[in-house]
Amino acid sequence: MVKITVITGCAGFIGTNLSLKLLKNGERILGIDNLSSGSERNLKILRKYKNFEFLKKDVSKNIKIEYKNIDKIFHLASMASPKFYQRYPIETLKTNFTGTLNMLEVAKKSGAKFIFSSTSEIYGDPLVHPQNENYWGNVNPIGIRACYDEGKRVAETLTFEYFRNFKIKVKVCRIFNTFGEFMSKDDGRVVSNFIVQALKDDYITVYGDGNQTRSFCYIDDLLKGIISLSESKDDFTGPVNLGSDEEIKVIDLANIVIKLTGSKSKIIFKDLPKDDPVKRKPDLSLAKKVLKYKNNIPIEVGILKTIEYFRGVL
Amino acid sequence: MVKITVITGCAGFIGTNLSLKLLKNGERILGIDNLSSGSERNLKILRKYKNFEFLKKDVSKNIKIEYKNIDKIFHLASMASPKFYQRYPIETLKTNFTGTLNMLEVAKKSGAKFIFSSTSEIYGDPLVHPQNENYWGNVNPIGIRACYDEGKRVAETLTFEYFRNFKIKVKVCRIFNTFGEFMSKDDGRVVSNFIVQALKDDYITVYGDGNQTRSFCYIDDLLKGIISLSESKDDFTGPVNLGSDEEIKVIDLANIVIKLTGSKSKIIFKDLPKDDPVKRKPDLSLAKKVLKYKNNIPIEVGILKTIEYFRGVL
Repeated sequence: MVKITVITGCAGFIGTNLSLKLLKNGERILGIDNLSSGSERNLKILRKYKNFEFLKKDVSKNIKIEYKNIDKIFHLASMASPKFYQRYPIETLKTNFTGTLNMLEVAKKSGAKFIFSSTSEIYGDPLVHPQNENYWGNVNPIGIRACYDEGKRVAETLTFEYFRNFKIKVKVCRIFNTFGEFMSKDDGRVVSNFIVQALKDDYITVYGDGNQTRSFCYIDDLLKGIISLSESKDDFTGPVNLGSDEEIKVIDLANIVIKLTGSKSKIIFKDLPKDDPVKRKPDLSLAKKVLKYKNNIPIEVGILKTIEYFRGVL
Repeated sequence: MVKITVITGCAGFIGTNLSLKLLKNGERILGIDNLSSGSERNLKILRKYKNFEFLKKDVSKNIKIEYKNIDKIFHLASMASPKFYQRYPIETLKTNFTGTLNMLEVAKKSGAKFIFSSTSEIYGDPLVHPQNENYWGNVNPIGIRACYDEGKRVAETLTFEYFRNFKIKVKVCRIFNTFGEFMSKDDGRVVSNFIVQALKDDYITVYGDGNQTRSFCYIDDLLKGIISLSESKDDFTGPVNLGSDEEIKVIDLANIVIKLTGSKSKIIFKDLPKDDPVKRKPDLSLAKKVLKYKNNIPIEVGILKTIEYFRGVL
C-alpha cells in the first residue's frame, strides 16, 4: 500500500513549498486546506502533479480521512500573518486548538508521525535573546496577537499531551520569520510588503523607526530543516527552533529590497502596532546539533529569488 | 419572565459555594456540571433548593439550553487541582477551550453577562512579585501543568475576542488559592491535604522545604469579590485578581492546621513536583479600587470553619 503524507495548509506559503518539494521527490501527498488564507493560485500548481490529491476542508471541522496508510502528517494549517489572524481571531483559535486536536486524532488512529509547525510567536515579546527552546516566552494572553500566539502555545500543549498519553510520534518546530516564493502578496508581512511596494514604486512602509531587528530565513533552508526533523529519530520530539539567526534591521531589509529591485520607492515610517515584538532571534544550537541544520542561502540571494517570483505574480 | 443565572461547574468547590449563596438570595440557578470532579454530595445539597435546576452535561460537548432569559453566566467549569488535571489533561484542555467557546456562544445568543473564572496559574512561575493583571506570566507551554495553565490562558483569549468582536459583556477574574467548605477531601491541594491528614492523625506532607509561600483566601471573601465583579459596570471587563495578599509559608500553614485540629500529626517533607511555582501572591490594587474588595476573614478563622466542615465529611 502506497504511503501517504498529509499536509494541512497545503495552499499556504510553507505548505505549497513543502508540498512541491515532496511531490518532486515522488511522495504521494494528500493536501488539506480550506483556502481561507491559502491560495487558489498555489493550489493550481500543486494540482499539476499526479501524486497530489486535494481535500478542501477546514481542519477545525470534522475530519474524515482514510486512516490506514498515512505515514506522516505535516500540520501547517493556520492563518499566520497578523493582518489575517487579527481579522479572523476566533477562526484562528479554532484552527489551532480544534484543528490540531482533530489532526492529532488522525495521527493516533493511523499511527502516523505528527510534525507540527509552531512559531517563534510563542515566545511573544521575548525578554531573553536569542531565544532557545527552554525559554517560556512573554505573551499577552488577552492582546490582539493572542489568538495566534496563545493558539499556537495551546496547540503545542495538546501535541505534547498526545505524545505523553498516547505515545504518538510527535515533532514540533518553532518557525521564525521565513520568506520566499508562494508568499501571498497581500499578507501584510514585511518581506512581501517591501517587495510588492518596491516593484510598484510605492512608498515602502516601515513600522517604528526600523531599528527593530528580525532574522529572515529563506524558504529552501527552512524546508531542509522541516524535512530533517520529519526524518529524525522517533525519540526526538523537539520543540526545535528553525529559521535564521542572522539579524538584520528592518530598515536595512528595506534598503536591500530597494537596491535589488532597482526601485524608485522612498521609505516612510509609521507607528509600531500594539504588542509588536521589538526583537526576536532564534538560538539554533539544537537544530544545528540534532538536525545538522544550516542556513546556506544568503539573504540577498533569497530576496532576489523572491523578487523574481513576485514579478511573475503582480 | 424570571431571569436565570447559569453556573457551570456548579458541583465543584467554588461552584457549590457560589450557587448556595445566590440560591439563598432567591436567584434562580441553572447549574451545569458533568460531575467529573464536581461532587454528588455537593449537588445533593443544591438540589434541596426549589430555585435550583440541574443539567448534567460536559460543557465541551454541544450545549443546548433555553437562551431567552439567561441574565448571567458564571463559567467556572474546569478541573482545577493538579492531581485531577494531570490525570485528565486532554479533557481539561477541551473544557477550557471548547467549553468556554460553547458558553461564550450561549452568552452571545442570550445577551447574558459572561463571568469567567480564570486563575493565578496563568502567571505560571512568576518572575515578578506580587503579580498584577498586566503581568504576562511565565508558563511552560509543554510542561505537565500546561493543560490547565495554557487552557485557562487561551480561554481568556477567547473571552476577550468575543468581547472585541461581538460586544459580549465579559468579566474575567483570576482566582488565587482559595479554601473553605465543599472542597473535595481528595483534591490533593495543600489546605484540604493538611486538614484531612491532621484529622486522621496521619503524617502531614509538605512538598519542598515548606518555605515557599502561598496566599490563601477563605471562600466567603472570594465570593464577595466574584459577586461584586458580576455587578460591576459593563465597561469593567477585568481581568482582575481575586484572592488574598497575606502571604504564609506552607510550613506555617501546616502548623496552624495541627494547632487548630489538636492533631498528633507529624510533618514529613517530600520533593517538590515539576514546574511547581515557588511563590505566588496577587497584587489586589485593582480589585480593591474597582470592586471595593477586602479580605475580612483571618486565615485562622477560615481554617477553623474548614476543619469543622471536614469533620462532618470524613
